[in-house]
Amino acid sequence: MKLATLDTGTPDGALVVVSADGARYLSAADVAATLQSAIENWTTAAPALAALAEKLAAGGGQSTADLAFAAPMPRAWQWLDGSAFRSHGELMETLFGTEPPPPGRPLMYQGLSHQFLSAIADVPMPREEDGIDFEGEFGVITDFVPMGVTPEAAMAHIKLIVQINDWSLRALAPVEMKTGFGWIHAKPACSVAPFAVTPDELGDAWRDGRVHLPLTVDWNGARFGNAHGGVMEFGFHDLVAHAASTRSLCAGTIIGSGTVSNSNFREIGSSCIAERRGIEMLDEGTARTAYMHFGDTVRMEARLPDGSVLFGAIDQKVVKG
Amino acid sequence: MKLATLDTGTPDGALVVVSADGARYLSAADVAATLQSAIENWTTAAPALAALAEKLAAGGGQSTADLAFAAPMPRAWQWLDGSAFRSHGELMETLFGTEPPPPGRPLMYQGLSHQFLSAIADVPMPREEDGIDFEGEFGVITDFVPMGVTPEAAMAHIKLIVQINDWSLRALAPVEMKTGFGWIHAKPACSVAPFAVTPDELGDAWRDGRVHLPLTVDWNGARFGNAHGGVMEFGFHDLVAHAASTRSLCAGTIIGSGTVSNSNFREIGSSCIAERRGIEMLDEGTARTAYMHFGDTVRMEARLPDGSVLFGAIDQKVVKG
Repeated sequence: MKLATLDTGTPDGALVVVSADGARYLSAADVAATLQSAIENWTTAAPALAALAEKLAAGGGQSTADLAFAAPMPRAWQWLDGSAFRSHGELMETLFGTEPPPPGRPLMYQGLSHQFLSAIADVPMPREEDGIDFEGEFGVITDFVPMGVTPEAAMAHIKLIVQINDWSLRALAPVEMKTGFGWIHAKPACSVAPFAVTPDELGDAWRDGRVHLPLTVDWNGARFGNAHGGVMEFGFHDLVAHAASTRSLCAGTIIGSGTVSNSNFREIGSSCIAERRGIEMLDEGTARTAYMHFGDTVRMEARLPDGSVLFGAIDQKVVKG
Repeated sequence: MKLATLDTGTPDGALVVVSADGARYLSAADVAATLQSAIENWTTAAPALAALAEKLAAGGGQSTADLAFAAPMPRAWQWLDGSAFRSHGELMETLFGTEPPPPGRPLMYQGLSHQFLSAIADVPMPREEDGIDFEGEFGVITDFVPMGVTPEAAMAHIKLIVQINDWSLRALAPVEMKTGFGWIHAKPACSVAPFAVTPDELGDAWRDGRVHLPLTVDWNGARFGNAHGGVMEFGFHDLVAHAASTRSLCAGTIIGSGTVSNSNFREIGSSCIAERRGIEMLDEGTARTAYMHFGDTVRMEARLPDGSVLFGAIDQKVVKG
């Protein structure tokens, strides 16, 4: 099933269930007021939400045409973003002069979680010279995960899958990385595609804890990337277990894949500008492609093999904040 | 005034106002159910809470003797911890072989905020060999802070002051710092003293955005540190402005000082074991003091110059998690 959150002007919006094609919806107010509430009570909420999804499949519900969707979780208690695509990691290490992580160990940072922008909200940034960049990712939402969970046991805690644009300010990243404290200035709020979907919605495209689908990225209307999510070095279950090594994870924890990237990036393109710049440095000795300007747009979408809508599209404009 | 949260078995507990000596309380349910709710509506909530504090000052309220306090905010949407005591930073740079930050720039990381332990809760840790350490800190809670706020304007957004034990797993820190992504494994949930107090409760001890009070730290009943909070290199208003450079801060953001530390640490001691070990490395070439064992206790307290209770004490035992 597909879940979404209506922008009602409240911090957490209102939970709805959406039809497979995203065209119709039913209120989930009788089950859970918000997605956070649903994920906290998933054992009882999931069957009740599935019953609403069946009504939608039978033709019920109202049109979503005039609705304003918020991010599925407009705020979350925890957002941990991995960097699980090795080809992306290698390019970033080239670009920023950082060392690769120890083998077998995912990279992960704790990110700003008090705000997730909707898929169509303008994105306010303070300065162009900060190096404004998008990062196309997949992510998962977990229920409560106990400390010390194994990767095998972690799989069952993955309840929903989402699609994320992890906004980054590249010029501010190196000084923060050098401190060892991680990013504050370089990582403002992310944007999230409107629909959070249960793994079964992906069919065969969800296996090994990975989203086996390409993510198309268009910058100012021109195709920029079409990298495939299936080649994550670590599956999402590995990332969940890594995150839960010394802490339990609250229900509603969002865990990201990091920038979707494939080693044949020269053919299929990239999901962020920094990666393109890394390729240019490798191939031409200097990075030619500039980061985003105010007024630039980015669109990101993942569709099922039959072409049908999955998460809905992220389609945004960067503005002076 | 002093605010506290009763542990009611719910995620956010129930807000109460506490008398200056911490001995009596009144429910704040008619004003705001939780501290998060109060800080989101501070302009109207603060006078109403102050009226309850006046009733307590006049002798009203019930005894707190049998109450279980949670952390003032048992969970928060954002926790950003600085490292604003230079003598601590220098020792950590010695211990971990890291570089000092650029001059004039505070260190800060985004920490786990979905759980703050109460001041007396046992602290579950997975392994002694992870290098279990306490870190005595002061912190502030802000209302909504707009992106780009100046340090001067940030001062007015500091609504409450708290006392924190930022638990750290030192053996896990260096590998995470080297990645540039910051800490996940090395920073489990913090503990917080029971009372969140408005700045006026500190009198002259709150000035220049700093807590001008010593923080006593006792490890297994023996005095370990008595460092003074007044010598922060950056004031809390500077830390708030740093945090808000490329993001707005949600109401209920908690910002920490980092380990309270003074340059005469050889005389007054330290607020964390890692600092003691850094001193031993400097003085003796090797770190002798071991990190904590299961069953160890730590107590932290800051009192006003007249000896009266301010935040209440943190007094905890580390247990196998």
